[in-house]
Amino acid sequence: MKKYFYFSMLMIVSGIFQAPAQESLSTQDLVSPEVGKDGRVTFRLNAPEIREAKLTGDWMPQDGSDRAAAAMERGAEGVWTYTTGPLPSEIYWYHFLVDGVRTLDPANAHTIRDVASVFNLFIVPGDPGGLYSVQPVSHGTVHKRWYDSPGLGMKRRMTIYTPPGYEVSGQEYPVLYLLHGAGGDEEAWSDLGRATQILDNLIASGKAQPMIVVMPNGNPGDEAAPGHATGPLVQPAFMRPGMMQGDYITSFGDIIDFVQSNYRAKAGKEHRAIAGLSMGGFHSLHISRYYPETFDYIGLFSPAIMPRNNEEDPAFRNMDETLKAQRDNVYELYWIGIGKDDFLYDEVTAYRKRLNGMKMPYEYHETEGGHVWHLWREYLSIFSQLLFR
Amino acid sequence: MKKYFYFSMLMIVSGIFQAPAQESLSTQDLVSPEVGKDGRVTFRLNAPEIREAKLTGDWMPQDGSDRAAAAMERGAEGVWTYTTGPLPSEIYWYHFLVDGVRTLDPANAHTIRDVASVFNLFIVPGDPGGLYSVQPVSHGTVHKRWYDSPGLGMKRRMTIYTPPGYEVSGQEYPVLYLLHGAGGDEEAWSDLGRATQILDNLIASGKAQPMIVVMPNGNPGDEAAPGHATGPLVQPAFMRPGMMQGDYITSFGDIIDFVQSNYRAKAGKEHRAIAGLSMGGFHSLHISRYYPETFDYIGLFSPAIMPRNNEEDPAFRNMDETLKAQRDNVYELYWIGIGKDDFLYDEVTAYRKRLNGMKMPYEYHETEGGHVWHLWREYLSIFSQLLFR
Repeated sequence: MKKYFYFSMLMIVSGIFQAPAQESLSTQDLVSPEVGKDGRVTFRLNAPEIREAKLTGDWMPQDGSDRAAAAMERGAEGVWTYTTGPLPSEIYWYHFLVDGVRTLDPANAHTIRDVASVFNLFIVPGDPGGLYSVQPVSHGTVHKRWYDSPGLGMKRRMTIYTPPGYEVSGQEYPVLYLLHGAGGDEEAWSDLGRATQILDNLIASGKAQPMIVVMPNGNPGDEAAPGHATGPLVQPAFMRPGMMQGDYITSFGDIIDFVQSNYRAKAGKEHRAIAGLSMGGFHSLHISRYYPETFDYIGLFSPAIMPRNNEEDPAFRNMDETLKAQRDNVYELYWIGIGKDDFLYDEVTAYRKRLNGMKMPYEYHETEGGHVWHLWREYLSIFSQLLFR
Repeated sequence: MKKYFYFSMLMIVSGIFQAPAQESLSTQDLVSPEVGKDGRVTFRLNAPEIREAKLTGDWMPQDGSDRAAAAMERGAEGVWTYTTGPLPSEIYWYHFLVDGVRTLDPANAHTIRDVASVFNLFIVPGDPGGLYSVQPVSHGTVHKRWYDSPGLGMKRRMTIYTPPGYEVSGQEYPVLYLLHGAGGDEEAWSDLGRATQILDNLIASGKAQPMIVVMPNGNPGDEAAPGHATGPLVQPAFMRPGMMQGDYITSFGDIIDFVQSNYRAKAGKEHRAIAGLSMGGFHSLHISRYYPETFDYIGLFSPAIMPRNNEEDPAFRNMDETLKAQRDNVYELYWIGIGKDDFLYDEVTAYRKRLNGMKMPYEYHETEGGHVWHLWREYLSIFSQLLFR
């Protein structure tokens, strides 16, 4: 009776959902990617009818705007495979090229969007891959919340991370404002940047203080990330209206006010940090200067420094004077990180000379690598451990 | 000076992000899908080197487990196109088949995962497409929150929607518990089901009461959705450990207790609804019976009814007696919706006979169609308007 009962359930349940049946059984049974204990990763694609399969991933070398692609090998019954050399622990992105067409791996449902490109992802365990993975620790809460920005004249969406125990502790917490780069939005740091996992894990191990992390949308013409804004679904663009103008900087007080009045956020600059990558580094530089006595911790991750001076936009006026005022107000940490191969390297070197010239103290962290998420996750991991001590 | 300044910015900013440069310009410039005013939708794929391109979408007829696929036509320079007839307003999913390989549309970054399959999506505006779209109204907050389930012996992740104004109103709200089907998880209703948009829009127009919507994970062996659980990334499976056993039902009190003590949730059955699709309908049936005096509104959307009687599992004991007790306790609404082509239709008919036999009142809503999300979004839209009046 019991056996029949479970058999009936299986028969009915198996029929409940139709869509996966569109995949052939052989595709469903393929394991791809398969991450070996030695860090070698094998990819498999069931495609008997194609002429050529390639694979490209973010661990492969990049030459200008072209990423290298590796040929996959056709095996028995048209299953194409490719195995990497040992990859260091990390979270990686990849996609296939099927007779020249960009294709996701049908055997891997884990995807991520970066601007207008969707990738598959996988994790090679270890360090730092483990830091970017969900671990058996207490987890914070991720909120997708809309706030009113009088400065930009619209309601806008943000991502807010509250640390484990926030809802029941009754305590106030310090706040890290964490800003995305050009082409990004309020989903970038939580999804591409693994900020949720990084904070959960560093807080659990006592390496980072429990903190609120606020991840707003840095495109002042946009309400929200693609798919979450009013209006038709449009293809995400790298360049957004007003992206590099000062409106986001001069209206950033709307976000701070909202957080202070809607979350148990500690008041005072010693409890506030701001950091961002690329355009978000540019934003962090200018916001921390524009709002004096507001942030004790500033992080510029591979920052875009420009524009240097632009007296026409209130956000960029009196650059030197306001930097000196920021210096004289004193802060705990002004942290700059950049990779040696970053195309912004010279810009950052020039900015460091400027800071040196005005005796504005900062901590400088130079690494291998270019302008990539791999480094920004690493920078967040380092920077967040230095905060609120 | 100003002109040069913006030109410099553009030059630098354009270089900031490398990944999209992997796409050829022609792919970036393609618009796909293009939704015409008459509901005709044109898809385009730049693939000069392939032999055959097909497209399949959830508006196409399904024959058993096979969905029809339409041949795309090769045009000049290898751009393949396909244009549908006029499609009624809806949110749709599709993917390409490139020489037999399942492929997403490289020109459409909007994707959605259903179990282990990733689809592109688009919306044909109108009704109900507009109800499933982000509109210029006040938006609720979506929380990804972990709770402790002593009954299942683990911490688990859920999605919670709080209505617009929740954070500042100080008011208590009624709660809808909204349960996913087999193969789903705590992301299903908010993503595939557009519950966030539906509730935002119905609340804004006064058609639904402001309510909290709790979307837990109904797989008792899982902590969280794929990619959000402890451990390596694994390919999502349709069948999950313990999926149809009674543990989730008998431990559901953990979720109710958590919501009552962590959110401003009104107490009392008149302020509580439970509804679910397919396996979630099965869960709603049994949970509403197992927890007497707890729910005044019950919604079974294309429900899996089995198992009927199983005295070995406490969740399924005394089916008739407990249904009669539920009847005698009185409720406001017991709502059953199903499509005429649903493979569960006969099961539901048999269940209705059983309810008729015991004079257990219910409202029955029969529609065209099968076992598909299209109907479950419609059922949620109808059911949520009937609650808490």
